[in-house]
Amino acid sequence: MTDAPTTAPVARAATAGEVLAGYLTAQAGAFLRALPQVVGEAGSRPGSLPASAQAADDLLRAVRRVGGALHTFAAAFDPQWAQESRTELRWLLNLLAQEPGYRRRAARLTGALDSLADASPDGAGMLAGHAGAPKARALLERQLTLARTRAHTAVLQELRSARLHALADRMTLLAGEVPLTAAAAEPVAALLPRAAAALAALLGAGERLPWQRAAQAYGGAGLHRLGAAQAEPGEVPAARAAADADAALAADDAPWLRARILVKRARYALEVCGAPGGGLAELDGVLARHREASDAAATVATAARTPRITPATAYVLGVVHADQRLEVESARYAFGRQWPGVAPGLVGPVAALPG
Amino acid sequence: MTDAPTTAPVARAATAGEVLAGYLTAQAGAFLRALPQVVGEAGSRPGSLPASAQAADDLLRAVRRVGGALHTFAAAFDPQWAQESRTELRWLLNLLAQEPGYRRRAARLTGALDSLADASPDGAGMLAGHAGAPKARALLERQLTLARTRAHTAVLQELRSARLHALADRMTLLAGEVPLTAAAAEPVAALLPRAAAALAALLGAGERLPWQRAAQAYGGAGLHRLGAAQAEPGEVPAARAAADADAALAADDAPWLRARILVKRARYALEVCGAPGGGLAELDGVLARHREASDAAATVATAARTPRITPATAYVLGVVHADQRLEVESARYAFGRQWPGVAPGLVGPVAALPG
Repeated sequence: MTDAPTTAPVARAATAGEVLAGYLTAQAGAFLRALPQVVGEAGSRPGSLPASAQAADDLLRAVRRVGGALHTFAAAFDPQWAQESRTELRWLLNLLAQEPGYRRRAARLTGALDSLADASPDGAGMLAGHAGAPKARALLERQLTLARTRAHTAVLQELRSARLHALADRMTLLAGEVPLTAAAAEPVAALLPRAAAALAALLGAGERLPWQRAAQAYGGAGLHRLGAAQAEPGEVPAARAAADADAALAADDAPWLRARILVKRARYALEVCGAPGGGLAELDGVLARHREASDAAATVATAARTPRITPATAYVLGVVHADQRLEVESARYAFGRQWPGVAPGLVGPVAALPG
Repeated sequence: MTDAPTTAPVARAATAGEVLAGYLTAQAGAFLRALPQVVGEAGSRPGSLPASAQAADDLLRAVRRVGGALHTFAAAFDPQWAQESRTELRWLLNLLAQEPGYRRRAARLTGALDSLADASPDGAGMLAGHAGAPKARALLERQLTLARTRAHTAVLQELRSARLHALADRMTLLAGEVPLTAAAAEPVAALLPRAAAALAALLGAGERLPWQRAAQAYGGAGLHRLGAAQAEPGEVPAARAAADADAALAADDAPWLRARILVKRARYALEVCGAPGGGLAELDGVLARHREASDAAATVATAARTPRITPATAYVLGVVHADQRLEVESARYAFGRQWPGVAPGLVGPVAALPG
C-alpha cells in the first residue's frame, strides 16, 4: 500500500458503506456458490463427502466473516436486520460445524491412541501393546461415529427447511444490496474506531488470559489446578462425581474459547479495512488447536463413564484424556510464545490503515 | 582459593594419597557415626523413624561418596580391596534406599492424586470429585505400604548380618588408614586426570542425551514416542500387553538414570579435589526428580494391572500415570535448561583446580 500512487483520490474518498458493501457482497457470493454443493451432497452418506467438505469449509468461512462484520460494524447496518442475520448465521454455523468437528475429533483421538500404542523399532508409546488400547479405540470410534451420524441427520433435515431458504434469500439480498444506515455514508475513516474497538477487546482479553503461566513450560498447574471450581469445597458427593471435573475443565477453557472468538472478530475487522492480519491467523490456528484438544478431552472423559467397560479400557482412556489435556497446555504455551509478538500490533495500528 | 598466600608449600606439596585419605577418613567417620542410629532404630515400626531418617540419609550420603571416590580414583587403591568395598557399599545402598524410596513415592503419588482430585474454590484438578480417585488412592497406598514393609523387614534382617559387620569393619579401617598403592605417593596433581575423566564421562553422556528435544517445551514426543522399543514391530500379542510399554519406558529413561550416576561421580570427584561443584548439585537434584517420577509412573502402571479393580479406579490410574510421565518430561526440560550453563564448565576446569 505504501507504493500506491498518490493520485488515487476515488479509492480514498470511498464511504464506509462502500467498503462494507464490497466485503459483504464478496462473502455473500462465496456463500451462495458453496451452498448448493453442500445441500446437494448432504444427501449422500456421512463420511463420503470429499467435495462438499471443501464446500462446507467455504460456506463456514463466509458465514463467519459476514457475522463478524455485522457485529463489529453494527452501527452501519439496520439494527434489526443485522441482529436477525447474525442469529441465523450462528444457527447455520452450529449446524454445519458439528459433523466435520466429530470427524476431526475421531481422527485426532484415534491418531493419538495409535501413536500412544505404537511399538515401532525406533520407539514406542506409553501404551505400546496395552490390551486396553484396541478396545478404547473401538469405543471412541463407535461413539464418535454415532454422534457424527446424528449430526448428519440434523443437517439433512435442516438443509431442506424454510429457515435455510430464508437465510439463502437474506444472503442473496446481501450479495446485491446491503441494507445500510445513514452512518454508512460517512467517510471510510469512520470504520476505524470500530475496528480499533475489536482489536482493543482482543487485547484486553488476551492480557487477562493466564498466558504468563502458560508461557512457562511445565510451569503451569498442568493437570492439577484448573479454573475456578463450580463445586463447593469439601462437599463433593460421589453422585456428582466426574461432572465436577468436567465443569472445572470447562471453566478453565472458557476464557481461551472466548479469546478465539475475539481473535476472529479482530481478523475479519482488519480484513474489512484491507489491513494485514499481523499474526492473528496464526493465533487463530493455535486457539483452534486448543479448542479441538479441549473438546477431544471431554469426549474421552465421557467415554470413560460408559457402563461395563473393562478396567484396561478405562485406564487407556485416562491416559488419552491426560494426553489431550497436555495438548491443551501445549496450545496455551504456543499462544504465550506468539502473543508478545502480536499484542503490540493491536495497539493503535488501525489509525495507520490504508483507506 | 585464589587469595591463598603463596607461602603455603605444605598444602601444595600434599600427595594424592593424603588428599584421598583426608576425604575418605571424613566420609568413613560420618558412616560410623550414623550406622548405630540406623541399626538401633530399625527395630521400631516402619514409618516411625524420624530420627533414623536423618541418620539413614547421612549414611547413604557417606556410602555414595566413598563408592564414588573408590571408582574415580581407583588407581590409588589396592584394586581388590577397592572392588570389594564398592560391591559391599552398593549392597548397603540398595538395601537402605528402598524403604525411604517407597515412603517418598507414596507421598508423591498420594499428593499428586489429592491435587488432581482437589476441588477448592480457586481451582479444581482434572479428577475433581471423581469416584475413582479415593479408590485409586487407597490402592496405591496399600501396595506401597506393603512394599515398604517388605523393604523394612529386609533391612531388619540384614542389619544384624555378618555382612554388615564386615562392612562396618571395613569402614573402621578406612577411617584410620586407607589402603593406598604406590601411585598414591604421587603429587596431588596426579588426581586431576582422574577427576577430569569423570567430568569428561559426564560431558559425553550429557551431550548424547536427547535434551535438545527436551529443551523444547512440549516439542518432544511427550507420551507418544519413547525409547527404542523392546517389542518387535507388528507383533505384540495381547499376553505381553503392558510389559512392552513398561520396557519402552524403561529404555527411554535408562540414559537419564545413567547420567545421574555420572553426575554424582563428577560431583564427588570435584569434592575430593576441593573444587566448587559448578551446578552439578542442581543437575543431580533435577535428575533425582526424574528418577522419582519415573519410578512412581511404573508403580502406577503396575497398580493398574491389579485384578478386579473398577473401571473408575483404572481410569484415575491412567491419568496419574500420564501425570507422572509429564513430570518426567518436565524434569528433562529442566535439565535441558540447566545443562548449557554447566557443560562448558566440565571442559578442562580440573587443570585449574586448587591443589
